[in-house]
Amino acid sequence: MAKKILKVIKIGGRLIENEAFLTSFLKDFTQLEGPKILVHGGGNKATEVAGKLGFKTKMIDGRRITDKDSMEVITMVYGGLLNKSIVAKLQSKEQNAIGLCGADAKILISKKREIKEIDYGLVGDIEKVNTDFIEFILKQNIVPVFSAISCTEDGVLLNTNGDSVASEIAIAMSKIYETQLYYCSEKKGVLTDIEDETSVIPELNSDNYTALVESKVITDGMLPKLHNCFQAIERGVSTVHLGDARLLNKNAIHTKIVK
Amino acid sequence: MAKKILKVIKIGGRLIENEAFLTSFLKDFTQLEGPKILVHGGGNKATEVAGKLGFKTKMIDGRRITDKDSMEVITMVYGGLLNKSIVAKLQSKEQNAIGLCGADAKILISKKREIKEIDYGLVGDIEKVNTDFIEFILKQNIVPVFSAISCTEDGVLLNTNGDSVASEIAIAMSKIYETQLYYCSEKKGVLTDIEDETSVIPELNSDNYTALVESKVITDGMLPKLHNCFQAIERGVSTVHLGDARLLNKNAIHTKIVK
Repeated sequence: MAKKILKVIKIGGRLIENEAFLTSFLKDFTQLEGPKILVHGGGNKATEVAGKLGFKTKMIDGRRITDKDSMEVITMVYGGLLNKSIVAKLQSKEQNAIGLCGADAKILISKKREIKEIDYGLVGDIEKVNTDFIEFILKQNIVPVFSAISCTEDGVLLNTNGDSVASEIAIAMSKIYETQLYYCSEKKGVLTDIEDETSVIPELNSDNYTALVESKVITDGMLPKLHNCFQAIERGVSTVHLGDARLLNKNAIHTKIVK
Repeated sequence: MAKKILKVIKIGGRLIENEAFLTSFLKDFTQLEGPKILVHGGGNKATEVAGKLGFKTKMIDGRRITDKDSMEVITMVYGGLLNKSIVAKLQSKEQNAIGLCGADAKILISKKREIKEIDYGLVGDIEKVNTDFIEFILKQNIVPVFSAISCTEDGVLLNTNGDSVASEIAIAMSKIYETQLYYCSEKKGVLTDIEDETSVIPELNSDNYTALVESKVITDGMLPKLHNCFQAIERGVSTVHLGDARLLNKNAIHTKIVK
């Protein structure tokens, strides 16, 4: 029997900070049929709150370090303010939802990133997704809404990359569902010309991706992101879609990634 | 058949701000057998964060007014930082738990308090508890941990009295369980002499309560709190227990309220 489709949607931090975008996005989201999961980033709100609380953001080689104070702010802003506001907004649109971080029902168990050259602090990489509990929530027609916070087996909250949270959930759930992963950000998709928003590549598979990398059409920042996407495809996700806030609209121009 | 016992435990904000008390309390909590629910207050952390963020706490006649800014801070601090930290601490003690506010799975639906002489702002009184969802979580041996935030049918988050959250949950769940309600605060219980911590009244029923009120042994601040407790008893709760952080210890001196 064919598996049922599950949509896992990640919305970037900058989009959710824009009230008009968020409202329009959530409207599209509620109209999606079938089981679905929402993962949200945090954007600049945490940095803003940290600054006002007098915590300095520590950076090493341009990478943010999550110390204890930063983790407190992330727990407040991502795990509290943004997560619960999104849940409340979904309820206002008659979409039942529940806000979760990785510690809740041990839903996202991670390991603290090992210290090599740089100690990133309280940053985690996901090792286990509690698919039973997610399935149990989905069966009640409730949408799980995840903030990008995971938790170690010992109960330590860890800052976690939102794109990875979404892909690890989609990969883990692919044993039960045919999972589709959607990344909504400011970009319309993968572009052949970064200056030209109309140059969206409609479909990528590993063959034409390799060709585009070799011919240096795809470079820099897009490489790790696409590497992630193809990893998800390799590990069981059916399709990955990259686009802007209108991605969930039918017929929106975007990039679809297939095996 | 006798109903199974469910313990609903409220821990006050000041206690959870004290790391040593919280650790000792949570240890006792994890050792309680059978289904249980935790409700926590917020204490001074929200006021502290609001101050640092530059939000002024508005007071009318000594009562705090919850405006939009205050509600943001409450959602951050109670719904995020405190709630998720408690859940993570419980996980570290091998007690599976899930952090919830009223918007999650529409678990605590409230109505905004009507404006009479004073407009308290975003403050709610609970009208409906989603007992099905709570029961469903308890059946997985997961402890629901509630912050004192409820949500209107229209998806507006509201600040809600923590004692009321605990009693409304205990009352609603009494259709399924024999519910016992525990209020842990700084006081050892109801005292005959407010200056003397050893003057705890071990047991109160409505008869000796009335006598103690008439003889003015119980006065002032204790009156609304005890009124609440007897209301809970009237509406189906089996027993109410008032005590300090050691309340969950067997044999701890405290006040027990019965019908």
